[in-house]
Amino acid sequence: MNEATIELSVNAAARREADNPRSLVAAIGKPLKLESGSTLAPLRIAYQTYGVLNRDRSNAVLVCHALTGDQHVANVHPVTGKQGWWSTMVGPGRPVDTDRFFVICSNVVGGCMGTTGPASTDPATGEPYGLSLPLVTIRDMVDAQALLLDHLGIPDLFCAVGGSMGGMQVLQWAARHPDRVFSALPIATAAKHSAQNIAFHEVGRQAITADPDWRDGRYLLEGSIPRKGLAVARMAAHITYLSEPALQTKFGRNLQDRDRRTFGFDADFQIESYLRHQGASFVERFDANSYLYVTRAMDYFDLGADHGGSLAAAFKGTKTRFCVASFTSDWLFPTEGARQVVHALNAAAANVSFVEIATDKGHDAFLLDVPELFATTKGFLDAAAKVRGL
Amino acid sequence: MNEATIELSVNAAARREADNPRSLVAAIGKPLKLESGSTLAPLRIAYQTYGVLNRDRSNAVLVCHALTGDQHVANVHPVTGKQGWWSTMVGPGRPVDTDRFFVICSNVVGGCMGTTGPASTDPATGEPYGLSLPLVTIRDMVDAQALLLDHLGIPDLFCAVGGSMGGMQVLQWAARHPDRVFSALPIATAAKHSAQNIAFHEVGRQAITADPDWRDGRYLLEGSIPRKGLAVARMAAHITYLSEPALQTKFGRNLQDRDRRTFGFDADFQIESYLRHQGASFVERFDANSYLYVTRAMDYFDLGADHGGSLAAAFKGTKTRFCVASFTSDWLFPTEGARQVVHALNAAAANVSFVEIATDKGHDAFLLDVPELFATTKGFLDAAAKVRGL
Repeated sequence: MNEATIELSVNAAARREADNPRSLVAAIGKPLKLESGSTLAPLRIAYQTYGVLNRDRSNAVLVCHALTGDQHVANVHPVTGKQGWWSTMVGPGRPVDTDRFFVICSNVVGGCMGTTGPASTDPATGEPYGLSLPLVTIRDMVDAQALLLDHLGIPDLFCAVGGSMGGMQVLQWAARHPDRVFSALPIATAAKHSAQNIAFHEVGRQAITADPDWRDGRYLLEGSIPRKGLAVARMAAHITYLSEPALQTKFGRNLQDRDRRTFGFDADFQIESYLRHQGASFVERFDANSYLYVTRAMDYFDLGADHGGSLAAAFKGTKTRFCVASFTSDWLFPTEGARQVVHALNAAAANVSFVEIATDKGHDAFLLDVPELFATTKGFLDAAAKVRGL
Repeated sequence: MNEATIELSVNAAARREADNPRSLVAAIGKPLKLESGSTLAPLRIAYQTYGVLNRDRSNAVLVCHALTGDQHVANVHPVTGKQGWWSTMVGPGRPVDTDRFFVICSNVVGGCMGTTGPASTDPATGEPYGLSLPLVTIRDMVDAQALLLDHLGIPDLFCAVGGSMGGMQVLQWAARHPDRVFSALPIATAAKHSAQNIAFHEVGRQAITADPDWRDGRYLLEGSIPRKGLAVARMAAHITYLSEPALQTKFGRNLQDRDRRTFGFDADFQIESYLRHQGASFVERFDANSYLYVTRAMDYFDLGADHGGSLAAAFKGTKTRFCVASFTSDWLFPTEGARQVVHALNAAAANVSFVEIATDKGHDAFLLDVPELFATTKGFLDAAAKVRGL
């Protein structure tokens, strides 16, 4: 394929997407060498694109999704029928402006929205992988994305951006493929997962594996779904995404039926009903084994440890421009973790700015309508685009 | 019974206890009128005592236990074989000095260590109550304790003291039976349960009821135990008892097997292994239905709402001496909730002191070796004892 053909095919695919929220799927010919030492092949990567790749192929923005996110950033979600998870951030005239940038988002390896994951069919057996899929890490997710860029003929990223686990991927991109990331915007994230966060993930995994319908991970083969366990995992996690003040403001002690306690175990309080709904709707769109794999990938993330215990070493010699953003009320990824990243980047003499955004919206703020985050993102991308001549 | 006989029998019982950690059980003749409108009869209350009731019966200290605590405050626990949960606080020469005070602790109504609860036999059917036991509240727990005092011939308490749900009972005692509480020491608690705390409880309840071995609450009849669900509930709750810095210091990202990740779902991290142990050991000593009942009682607690929306009204005209204590790193019952209690007590012109203790031990600090808490307790009790002429 010559350059013009690549450009044409990528953009034609993008235009098809506008009419059809089903994802593109790249069949990657090259095996993915995993951090565990195993190899994953064949590898399929499901992705969405928005906007048009320019002639220089210099305007690609990779959006990295979070634990339970997926590639449906700014289109109607094919399962839920809801707007994409970052449709306020990504689109024409939005902070990540699809009139200027070619935006790519791929489902992570280990995920369940089309990219190879535990629910995918293992061609060697003709059955779903289940737990026979090798464990994947954040590094493996990023290496899979790099293979996707190779596949698309995109040499490097103008920007890698994402929140939470997406932010981990952004940091990993900058450390692992420094020459392929012009700018990086990690949001509400950290360079390693904390003990408390590992603990919450472990509770979720225990809830799933405690469900007899999980069937030792073989539920797809045996025709069951560990709905209850997965719902409990989601409920526990969901609490950590919101701040205590936000819960207080949104729900407080409000009853479902005003002034009436049932003196029973129904969902008397609105917060109970809300959580139950979160759990029940999650199981309709997410695979339980994927939840095990992707939480494990986050637990394993420790970029400093991967570089001899020095986070600064991970970014040695970096030319990437960084903007690190955190939220005051985020107790899952508190500002302290962002500061550690910034200190390491400073120690590596990197070009870095740091914004702590005041909000009571908690960790979920990166997904919500937070004007300061939009302004930060737009400002950072505009400045970087100027330097890059976009 | 004349007074001397009562004194003798109470103290003889206390002496028997020293040799035998099995609890005394009071069969309460009077039905317990519950907040729900139901009546509970017969009512049995299991309790422990330490020290000797004085001739004036003026030195009784009621220790109120927390969610998963019980009456075994300062003796070897009959199930776990471990020292009582507050043996550092209660005993000869300890801050709650059993050489001076007659200490009582009773298992709460709804509990599972001998007091009437869902695992008790319903005399009407000859089967365990299960979910047919009416729901109980913090007020019901306190009214049951008041009936126990009547039974023991103890007119009033020199002090009511407890942490977490124990502190809720202390506040409820002062509001409900103001003439029977000379002094009150609520620790690490609040006058109402927050939305976040209700949310965590709901996750625990969902984990239990999702377990097929729960059998719609009839597991005792059907010979099963919802071990996995109860363990998950305990694990989720346990995270909230510790502070993030304490988890970081105690476990951080330490691996079980130094420097070796298994790239699987075993308990690679020490924090995972610790949580699994907490879950597994809890199911050996606690009843799943009791967990539902007692968490629900905490959720329902809102002392201000019970008094027309004014917490100050709950304490109107109080003569009780209060000391309110909180811990800086307690995110389950943060200092803010303690402050609200203190403000209400001030508005009610109560005699109140307030101590916020700096510690990184989180909510569990009330159970741990925290010298400032011991000093606060001893100082408050000594001063109150002086006023009372003890």
